[in-house]
Amino acid sequence: MLVLGIDPGTATTGYGVVRRDDRGLTQLVECGVVRTRARDPLPARLREIFEGVQELIARHHPDVLAVESIFYAKNVRTTVTLGHARGVILLAGELAHLQVHEFPPAEIKKAVVGTGAATKEQVQFMLTRLLRLKAVPQPSDAADGVAAALTYCMAPNLASRARPSSRLLVP
Amino acid sequence: MLVLGIDPGTATTGYGVVRRDDRGLTQLVECGVVRTRARDPLPARLREIFEGVQELIARHHPDVLAVESIFYAKNVRTTVTLGHARGVILLAGELAHLQVHEFPPAEIKKAVVGTGAATKEQVQFMLTRLLRLKAVPQPSDAADGVAAALTYCMAPNLASRARPSSRLLVP
Repeated sequence: MLVLGIDPGTATTGYGVVRRDDRGLTQLVECGVVRTRARDPLPARLREIFEGVQELIARHHPDVLAVESIFYAKNVRTTVTLGHARGVILLAGELAHLQVHEFPPAEIKKAVVGTGAATKEQVQFMLTRLLRLKAVPQPSDAADGVAAALTYCMAPNLASRARPSSRLLVP
Repeated sequence: MLVLGIDPGTATTGYGVVRRDDRGLTQLVECGVVRTRARDPLPARLREIFEGVQELIARHHPDVLAVESIFYAKNVRTTVTLGHARGVILLAGELAHLQVHEFPPAEIKKAVVGTGAATKEQVQFMLTRLLRLKAVPQPSDAADGVAAALTYCMAPNLASRARPSSRLLVP
């Protein structure tokens, strides 16, 4: 099973592709970021994010899209703009008929570290251990994308408990 | 010039297609709504909105997409979900190389009625007068889409002052 994990952002969207074999072993396939330019208008930036995710899906053919859900920041405007970015990411997954799952940040921390109150550093440390990496995935947005993917891989029960935000509709 | 105006919503997205001729005369071409089912998962609803807008663009070939920008409601969760819907609408416009303009609700009221504090009923009354309609466009979400389109048509100066949220990028 191949999982594409995404940490949405208007400026930097992090992603990680993680494979989980039948024995439950996980392996990092690729990680990175889709960057957009602050001086570009929002629709152009949304297009870059959308096409970036579509390209990843076309290259890896994942089964699942695991997306970090929104942390309700104090700055409502920032949170709403982030909603625009998440919208086009969920759309890319839906158009490719992927299973789409959303995980709140605390759930990702809990799955990877064991506690929803874990720090960013603890998450990154556990990522490198669990995926047997030589270094923390860089930049940190990429690590967050990997963490989202790993959350689905590590806890299929958790994933089935999580509100599946996408399922094939049978007429 | 043909303008597709949109009032985004997760459940009901209103739209109006308005033509403005060289003398500045405006005419309503079509209006209506794209509805999604509350029981469907968010990605599926975003897909319906996206494809609904794409279909309108394919049918009418508008030059401009005029989108009502977000009213920051007290319910942050609702506002953020609305951000997802706006994201896929702006994306549809961008992918079709339309000029995309966003107008805050108060600016739409000001353009149509003359005051940013106008009531919904006043906007609807002026819509019917300005477009010489026999009745108010129904449902009200459709009227809101028409109002967004008319805002661009009525005030090209306003439109050029409004932050163009999309423009062709020349390398």
